Amino acid sequence: MVQNSISLHKKLRGKISIISKISPMKLGDIKLIYTPGVAEVCKQIQHNNALKYSFTSKGNNVAIITDGTRNLGLGNTGPDAALPVIEGKSAIYSEFGKINAFPICLNTTDKNEIIQTIKSIEPVFGAINLEDIESPKVLDIANELEKILKIPIFHDDQHGTAVVVLSALLNSLKIVNKEIKDIKIVIVGSGSAGYGIAKLLHYSGCRNIVVFDSKGTIHKGRKQHMNKYKKEIAKLTNPKEKGSLSKTIINSDVFIGVSGIKNLLKVSMIKKMSKNSIIFALTNPEPEVIPSIAKKAGVKIIATGSFKYHNKVNNAIVFPYLMRVILDLKIERITMKILYNTAQAIANTVHKNELSVNNIIPELGNKKIQNNIMKSLGSTL
Amino acid sequence: MVQNSISLHKKLRGKISIISKISPMKLGDIKLIYTPGVAEVCKQIQHNNALKYSFTSKGNNVAIITDGTRNLGLGNTGPDAALPVIEGKSAIYSEFGKINAFPICLNTTDKNEIIQTIKSIEPVFGAINLEDIESPKVLDIANELEKILKIPIFHDDQHGTAVVVLSALLNSLKIVNKEIKDIKIVIVGSGSAGYGIAKLLHYSGCRNIVVFDSKGTIHKGRKQHMNKYKKEIAKLTNPKEKGSLSKTIINSDVFIGVSGIKNLLKVSMIKKMSKNSIIFALTNPEPEVIPSIAKKAGVKIIATGSFKYHNKVNNAIVFPYLMRVILDLKIERITMKILYNTAQAIANTVHKNELSVNNIIPELGNKKIQNNIMKSLGSTL
Repeated sequence: MVQNSISLHKKLRGKISIISKISPMKLGDIKLIYTPGVAEVCKQIQHNNALKYSFTSKGNNVAIITDGTRNLGLGNTGPDAALPVIEGKSAIYSEFGKINAFPICLNTTDKNEIIQTIKSIEPVFGAINLEDIESPKVLDIANELEKILKIPIFHDDQHGTAVVVLSALLNSLKIVNKEIKDIKIVIVGSGSAGYGIAKLLHYSGCRNIVVFDSKGTIHKGRKQHMNKYKKEIAKLTNPKEKGSLSKTIINSDVFIGVSGIKNLLKVSMIKKMSKNSIIFALTNPEPEVIPSIAKKAGVKIIATGSFKYHNKVNNAIVFPYLMRVILDLKIERITMKILYNTAQAIANTVHKNELSVNNIIPELGNKKIQNNIMKSLGSTL
Repeated sequence: MVQNSISLHKKLRGKISIISKISPMKLGDIKLIYTPGVAEVCKQIQHNNALKYSFTSKGNNVAIITDGTRNLGLGNTGPDAALPVIEGKSAIYSEFGKINAFPICLNTTDKNEIIQTIKSIEPVFGAINLEDIESPKVLDIANELEKILKIPIFHDDQHGTAVVVLSALLNSLKIVNKEIKDIKIVIVGSGSAGYGIAKLLHYSGCRNIVVFDSKGTIHKGRKQHMNKYKKEIAKLTNPKEKGSLSKTIINSDVFIGVSGIKNLLKVSMIKKMSKNSIIFALTNPEPEVIPSIAKKAGVKIIATGSFKYHNKVNNAIVFPYLMRVILDLKIERITMKILYNTAQAIANTVHKNELSVNNIIPELGNKKIQNNIMKSLGSTL
């Protein structure tokens, strides 16, 4: 597959094209879409700013913004090496959401310069998608942008990942017949994804969450290596859990890996989990445990973030569809309620009769996802 | 036409779309263009940066950047009202150059913030197109960007306009049988366009150029209202010309209007020009003189920048084709020689037998323009 991927990228020289909606373009068209006809369009927007949404692509344009510091699971690769991922994302936005999502890979990793740049380019976009920027910097950036911009800030690593995890979890719990309020969930990784997942699972009613970072569990009593986001996490998690992963995982119902560490989860650990255990090993490109190994160790449901295996718990199932609805409904701010309803809508796309341990989440191309999210958010907002 | 243009913009809601080159997109494709397949592509770019041109769209991406301070001939309309023009330009880039030119309308008019923003977003682009930014600020910006960026800075108001003017002039002179070294040219307007035109006409051999700004002619002796670009202009222009436009235009062979003032050129002035006079009234959306009026006043050749009339001296005939060649030949810097050769190539696209007072410049859709520029620049660089 590696060689196929390289050849395909070499052949394509970029995965996206910008095309004119007026094509072939005749002289008569040019007079209308360019000078002199366009002048009146400009004047009308100048006098009634809201018309920019009617007369331009702004309402369908999204900036996918990265600084390359957390590129996939590859770490800090810089902006050039991040472009293939962001372009892939752009292609998926177009294919499944009919959205103009343009990749912006930044030449700076400085927080204030990133904020300033996004503020500067805002006029062209209907929404911002922050992507693969290191945490906690990116959480500061998202918060600051929410204050100063009028368009929604969708932070895919935080919001999209949380939604797809909750979707998959809701369906998994139906299969194993457990309730979210009764289960113990261990999350490894407290970057944007871990932070977003912990918050949404708590919002969804889970009352026994443990979150690990590289220093151990994040709990109320911990004083070192904390920041304001970890303090927020500490408020949502089980204060009694202070041990190692191999201790904490005992009798847990769910393991969620957003650690960036491949093969983190050992067979011995999986065996200690409770009956009908569920593992979402979401690190990309290589998960915390390979599905066949987890299965052998006795897990009931195993999912990864990769498109290589069953149960693709990848935010690609979320972002093109949710963003379509955000743009169409002119949603200004991403709230917990929006994320929760979206997760429910995606989960419900898989009919009860179709649910199985290898089918907990709809396929990316499922055409019902879009309608279900629109129905859910359209009626509750 | 005004109503048609408004209706069309309302119907289209934006003139461009971003599409995936892989469509329909199957699961097998997603594995290659997104995770996990894309990871190897990222790694290869990380280790050999030049591969970004082979594996991504960078080499075909252009940022069209404006701050809305000189939107068309409408003045400072702000970035939102500039988007219809910049999108129209993007559509033309795609249609005639097969280029991904994305509109970036900036939320700031501050010189340093503009430079910083463009520097920040450089990694995604193969070239920058500066557009409709007020002068002399934009000339400082272009100079500074040329120093700090590795990609070419195409300043369309300066470079594109100069090329299309020289193209049209070369062909006009063939018709009236005059030589560029012998003629007197009056240019009204000393913004980016006037500056670029004066420089290129001087480079092309014209030795009697007069340039007006709102304070009168720009000449070596003038001390007030000068800046470094006007000082540059003063070095290229006739130092003896210090009078008003109606005086200076006496016996001039060519009038070039890039003034932003509609109906500036009066019948009485046109009558004072030399025999076989040439007028390029290039202000958009409404020219310095309407062609029918100029004709009645006795001009031999009249051209405008509008697509409404014959002789469309609009940089749209230049930018999609020249940019295609800039990207394909990986030209790093726009020089006078490149502009001169491009103008020659465009002029020569109109065959001697087809030349006439109403046909001095090829139509935008002429498929020979591209090849002619490529042949000319490919062989001389």
